[in-house]
Amino acid sequence: MLINVPETVVADALRGMAAAHPELTVDVERGIVARRDAPVAGKVALVSGGGSGHEPLHGGFVGPGMLSAACPGAIFTSPVPDQMVRAAAAVDSGAGVLFVVKNYTGDVLNFEMAAELAEDEGIQVAKVLVDDDVAVTDSLYTAGRRGTGGTLFVEKIAGAAAEAGAPLQRVEAIARRVNSRCRSFGVALSACTTPAKGSPTFELPAGELELGVGIHGEPGRERRGMMTSREIADYAVDAVVEDLRPSGPVLALINGMGGTPLLELYGFNAEVQRVLTERGIPVARTLVGNYVTSLDMAGCSVTLCEVDEELLRLWDAPVRTPALRWGR
Amino acid sequence: MLINVPETVVADALRGMAAAHPELTVDVERGIVARRDAPVAGKVALVSGGGSGHEPLHGGFVGPGMLSAACPGAIFTSPVPDQMVRAAAAVDSGAGVLFVVKNYTGDVLNFEMAAELAEDEGIQVAKVLVDDDVAVTDSLYTAGRRGTGGTLFVEKIAGAAAEAGAPLQRVEAIARRVNSRCRSFGVALSACTTPAKGSPTFELPAGELELGVGIHGEPGRERRGMMTSREIADYAVDAVVEDLRPSGPVLALINGMGGTPLLELYGFNAEVQRVLTERGIPVARTLVGNYVTSLDMAGCSVTLCEVDEELLRLWDAPVRTPALRWGR
Repeated sequence: MLINVPETVVADALRGMAAAHPELTVDVERGIVARRDAPVAGKVALVSGGGSGHEPLHGGFVGPGMLSAACPGAIFTSPVPDQMVRAAAAVDSGAGVLFVVKNYTGDVLNFEMAAELAEDEGIQVAKVLVDDDVAVTDSLYTAGRRGTGGTLFVEKIAGAAAEAGAPLQRVEAIARRVNSRCRSFGVALSACTTPAKGSPTFELPAGELELGVGIHGEPGRERRGMMTSREIADYAVDAVVEDLRPSGPVLALINGMGGTPLLELYGFNAEVQRVLTERGIPVARTLVGNYVTSLDMAGCSVTLCEVDEELLRLWDAPVRTPALRWGR
Repeated sequence: MLINVPETVVADALRGMAAAHPELTVDVERGIVARRDAPVAGKVALVSGGGSGHEPLHGGFVGPGMLSAACPGAIFTSPVPDQMVRAAAAVDSGAGVLFVVKNYTGDVLNFEMAAELAEDEGIQVAKVLVDDDVAVTDSLYTAGRRGTGGTLFVEKIAGAAAEAGAPLQRVEAIARRVNSRCRSFGVALSACTTPAKGSPTFELPAGELELGVGIHGEPGRERRGMMTSREIADYAVDAVVEDLRPSGPVLALINGMGGTPLLELYGFNAEVQRVLTERGIPVARTLVGNYVTSLDMAGCSVTLCEVDEELLRLWDAPVRTPALRWGR
């Protein structure tokens, strides 16, 4: 691993992020990445966070049109309530703050406590829980479904609504609508290696894959011998589509888990698009890359987000973050 | 690996790229990725290409402000002259075409032949050879120095000059100037796995690293037991700085080889910035991410590009490609 010592991996990364992105304010000690221009007068702020090891999620999604601030925790470990309250206080303009919370028990509890503490400080807070992963319910760290790739859609689309000046209730409603229309399914081709452990966090023999894996390597639906890109696309898209049953166009995220080459992700996208065409599902926009990762895990996930005109317009709205950037 | 069969990996990826990027024209059969709006009247076109497996280089750098077209070869294998001529013909507006060629024997010979063939077709062609890797001279596939991360700077900055309407001679001169001011050094923490071989292409025992590795896993200067991020930054930056001896500000590319998590790359950036500060070298801009990769290889490279006001202005100019995107 390209690290100094496991204990400083997150702080080191935040220092490196600060150096690369002068448009962000990075508080290394407190663990807060924020828009430099926050608070933005009259606008609702979005704050997210979670364990580190999923980069660019969430810090790479901070900027105009997406998150106002992100709170990175230790590797695969929830940030703490104080961190979230400080982030909320730093970016709240008085219009209120939406917490975007992936459904993992630690994150849920800590964001709940943070919401109470922030309200005690006079900050108006709303919360949205992201639980898009159809693979399993009640996983290793979760009651209910896990939050994975759908988080990107919630943060981008709700962020665009906030940027457009929507009030807190409206931004919250849009975030919930996006989550209710997002479904994901992930596949691991290898385990991931955390700095603290220094070796793979679970056993996945070469030539086998884990269908329905979580973004911390949590077990999925089943383990099988290696499948082709074509077979994996059939399996993953069917799992998503059976649950989502979209009646309109979708946004498609073909996401790498971190260790799979972009060349392979693009090839996998060709197979995903084939399945969607076969199922008669129109694709409005496609995003291919490493966005919601699990350190060096090889593998991929598919997220579909059914959109109406409003959600598509908000998706297309300008965004300026380290990892997602388009428009003006 | 996330593939169907090794034989179709590049074609599959091109199909997936076409589906994800409607702003590009992708000719899967001929192996050409081009701007959809090419040829652009009155403007010089930039064409690059090389073996696949280094994505997003080069196809991910096609778009306004950077490349007009890219020719992906088979994995780690030069594209063929006919491919390059067809790409040049597709994007030439009459203002001429600059070939950006990484210094590998196959690429050099094929681009030379393509230049002759294109000129026979009445296309004005200039060439720039990128040879920024200070690690070794006369490597496995190269006479002289290898072309690696500097390619990104040459393609971005010369692409901006072309977009601004500079004539061919001027775009070529700028490309040469950028190359002459770029130096790179790469480090492998693991080997990479090609689809055809299905196993690591060279032996690198766990806990060892290859200092000065090439982007196909070519041997570097020496092999050592694992070093910290701090030690690697000292070694890599010193190798680059001793050769470049910059007297002004630099652009810094902290590049991942494909298999190293973004979290670790940012941490490595903090160390690179520390060394540069210690050496008194001001950093004008920093880019951190997986841009010039070697499939799933773990590791990183550092490229520095010394800039004057003009080159910095061209670097900052708007760019709209799948992998690099900023400005209007």
